[in-house]
Amino acid sequence: MSTETDFLGELLDDEQIARGADALREHSTDWGTEDGVEPDVVVYPASTEDVSASLAGANKRKVPVTPYAAGTSLEGNPVPVEGGISMNLTRMNDVLAVRPEDLQLDVEPGVMGPAIEDAAGEHGLFFPPLPSSGDISTIGGMIANAASGMQTVKYGEVADWIRELEVVLADGSVITVGTKAVKTSSGYNLRDLIIGSEGTLGIVTRATLGLAGRPRQIRGGRALFPSLGDAAAAVTDVVQSGVDVAKIELIDTESAMMSNEYTGADLPDVPMVFVEFHADHGIDEEIAYCESVLAAHDPLEFELADEETMDSLWRARRDLAFAIRSWNLDLQPLVPGDVTVPISEYGPTIAYIKSLEDEHDLLMPCFGHAGDGNIHYTVLVDPTDSDEVERGQQAYSDIVDYALSVGGTATGEHGIGLGKRKYLEREHGAAAVALMQRVKDSFDPNGILNPGKIFPGDGEWERADPTDYDS
Amino acid sequence: MSTETDFLGELLDDEQIARGADALREHSTDWGTEDGVEPDVVVYPASTEDVSASLAGANKRKVPVTPYAAGTSLEGNPVPVEGGISMNLTRMNDVLAVRPEDLQLDVEPGVMGPAIEDAAGEHGLFFPPLPSSGDISTIGGMIANAASGMQTVKYGEVADWIRELEVVLADGSVITVGTKAVKTSSGYNLRDLIIGSEGTLGIVTRATLGLAGRPRQIRGGRALFPSLGDAAAAVTDVVQSGVDVAKIELIDTESAMMSNEYTGADLPDVPMVFVEFHADHGIDEEIAYCESVLAAHDPLEFELADEETMDSLWRARRDLAFAIRSWNLDLQPLVPGDVTVPISEYGPTIAYIKSLEDEHDLLMPCFGHAGDGNIHYTVLVDPTDSDEVERGQQAYSDIVDYALSVGGTATGEHGIGLGKRKYLEREHGAAAVALMQRVKDSFDPNGILNPGKIFPGDGEWERADPTDYDS
Repeated sequence: MSTETDFLGELLDDEQIARGADALREHSTDWGTEDGVEPDVVVYPASTEDVSASLAGANKRKVPVTPYAAGTSLEGNPVPVEGGISMNLTRMNDVLAVRPEDLQLDVEPGVMGPAIEDAAGEHGLFFPPLPSSGDISTIGGMIANAASGMQTVKYGEVADWIRELEVVLADGSVITVGTKAVKTSSGYNLRDLIIGSEGTLGIVTRATLGLAGRPRQIRGGRALFPSLGDAAAAVTDVVQSGVDVAKIELIDTESAMMSNEYTGADLPDVPMVFVEFHADHGIDEEIAYCESVLAAHDPLEFELADEETMDSLWRARRDLAFAIRSWNLDLQPLVPGDVTVPISEYGPTIAYIKSLEDEHDLLMPCFGHAGDGNIHYTVLVDPTDSDEVERGQQAYSDIVDYALSVGGTATGEHGIGLGKRKYLEREHGAAAVALMQRVKDSFDPNGILNPGKIFPGDGEWERADPTDYDS
Repeated sequence: MSTETDFLGELLDDEQIARGADALREHSTDWGTEDGVEPDVVVYPASTEDVSASLAGANKRKVPVTPYAAGTSLEGNPVPVEGGISMNLTRMNDVLAVRPEDLQLDVEPGVMGPAIEDAAGEHGLFFPPLPSSGDISTIGGMIANAASGMQTVKYGEVADWIRELEVVLADGSVITVGTKAVKTSSGYNLRDLIIGSEGTLGIVTRATLGLAGRPRQIRGGRALFPSLGDAAAAVTDVVQSGVDVAKIELIDTESAMMSNEYTGADLPDVPMVFVEFHADHGIDEEIAYCESVLAAHDPLEFELADEETMDSLWRARRDLAFAIRSWNLDLQPLVPGDVTVPISEYGPTIAYIKSLEDEHDLLMPCFGHAGDGNIHYTVLVDPTDSDEVERGQQAYSDIVDYALSVGGTATGEHGIGLGKRKYLEREHGAAAVALMQRVKDSFDPNGILNPGKIFPGDGEWERADPTDYDS
């Protein structure tokens, strides 16, 4: 592909184009990528027109364009592995309209979680599927990676709350997909095809989000268990019993220990489950029902917490990724795994992970959106010990294979990016991946949009694993 | 395209192939099509392998294949307008597996609503988005048309409860899309692209459905209003206020009158709203909250009903389409409209429809899934009065344009088929429709799958309107 990007000077203002070393370096990585690839240029569109003109020009010249926002993804999703243009959408960060009468909000792609919460909150509304990382990620990134969050167990994923999207295609044409009605059966569902396509099919420039009324009753609590197996079985039973939980998160002993070191959270030294309930009426009965289900799994304790205590517990939960990353600087975390399995397989999958931890003598803290069958597992390895690195990588990969073998997915909410390309065909089969590739070609015949991502055969650049640190 | 279908004899048993006049006639129409087009042959596959072999053979010979199931769709969706093969999937009607531990059910495409309810019900579970027409339609048809139902206001659409699909592509290859996990961010979302594609992208041969636990409390009731405007405003307020209704249906005076004639339902002569509440706890408080919201809209009456009374009210509601169709045999209904609008536009849209009814001196009964902003309107015309027919068609079309102008959709749940092709570009724009066409080509390069549907430029066969009756 071409690296001819001078044409941008005729389309955008000077302050919308950056070629300096800092800007190029900043756009070479995401949180999951240590040594990335620099783009040739970074552009900062301020409008749909800027995006459209830039894409039309790039398409004509076959210059790669990789969208970039907060850079907080984990699978290398916004790393511009073939150079070209990194399109930073964070200046398109306006809340365009709030329509409480339709329970809707129109936003630009660079708007972050707190701005969504503020705009909705003014009307007593909220955006239920906001990810745990919502404070540090953009709605565009959430849409691109098909994100979800702690409340997905009750309310669904980000995708379930996207009503309409404005999308710029590779050739610069602008389309609207979805509808402002809550449902439609008109034509192909291009909206949900764009969602999760990681910027490889088009660039979202406006999103209409659905909102919900804030529940009148919110209550949280924590259950402690003698073993991780008991904790996982309890979560499974809660979901199977139809307890109406708004959040239900599992945290293993190792994660709790690391959280204590990082935040001084003073979590006990046992596996635990955090829960939250949302209701307009009858929350006490629902909590009592949940407690009765948990009771069958020998909890050491189940305690409701006041709001302040609960806030600090949820903060500890949200900071777990940081806690694990910074726990022991001699150990290097592999990129956190994100497998998700049918709920009946949740306990067995956790048990399998812990058996690999023992077998390979590795540290593998686990936590995650347990109610969805989602597990964030982190394999920690000493990067100077090549045998340990290899065992860690094997364990990571074995866990993905295990999840796939029980009907699950390699990635619940982080996307494929670079890191999970090798699992794509294992999960979907060759014919489905070939079809995805034909769909990609039908959207982007020149292959300019975020090349080298999702498809295993597309591009040769691979992310460095910790093995490289010992060289 | 070719009409060479002898090859089927080598792939299927004799009793799986029908060329008799009755079979051909039966497969020439759906409920919304009076005079359709006969296929050259009807095949009845019994397995994925049958579907795959038939499609591979047809694709090689460029023979059209149009899937057919219950034939209860309204937009001509399964009419084989280019002849060839009508593929009747109703013999693939096994419930393959129930996994209550995962809240999941695996079914073949020909399974109908009652079998789903029975299989789930044995485990205290249910399939929440089942359409009102679920008794007479197949899950394959529901998936093909992106159906939804009375409980969509609380639980979402059929699409929201489809976890995984097995799909046979035009060339006979078999893929699996989606996952048995409740969420995934792995690769392109082909599942939701297949859903609503009306058999133009592939043929579904197996579906994994999500299920939910039956609510412990169910209560229904009926509110009467002095005017349709009050009734529509009340529904809008209920939705905006976040009342947790499981069903909320509007029925206008004309529909009520026709229902009385058809079923002897004894509905009063005023606009009314049927509601149902589902809860595990606190249903009385929720009903009281709903009543307080309704009270602001001058209801003549709001009454809870016992189970038997409520059953008969819901039956009357479900039979409305039949009641309207058979009310006056001198009048011919145009195919029922299915616009859906943002909830704040619900009242104005109803008012607009009624203004056209007055302006054109037509009978246009309205009902629908009000909580979703969905309106089923039927324009009744005297087919011997060509001026009235023309006014009716104009009114029908004006209503679609109105819905689109306020951000709505031409079709909430009936699909595009033949009948709504002319609105596709108005709703989505030329660039998006061109993209849909490229997606179609990427799935089905020979265009054998259900040709002549969805795309306005694809095929010339148009469905007869009642105008033709006066010739």
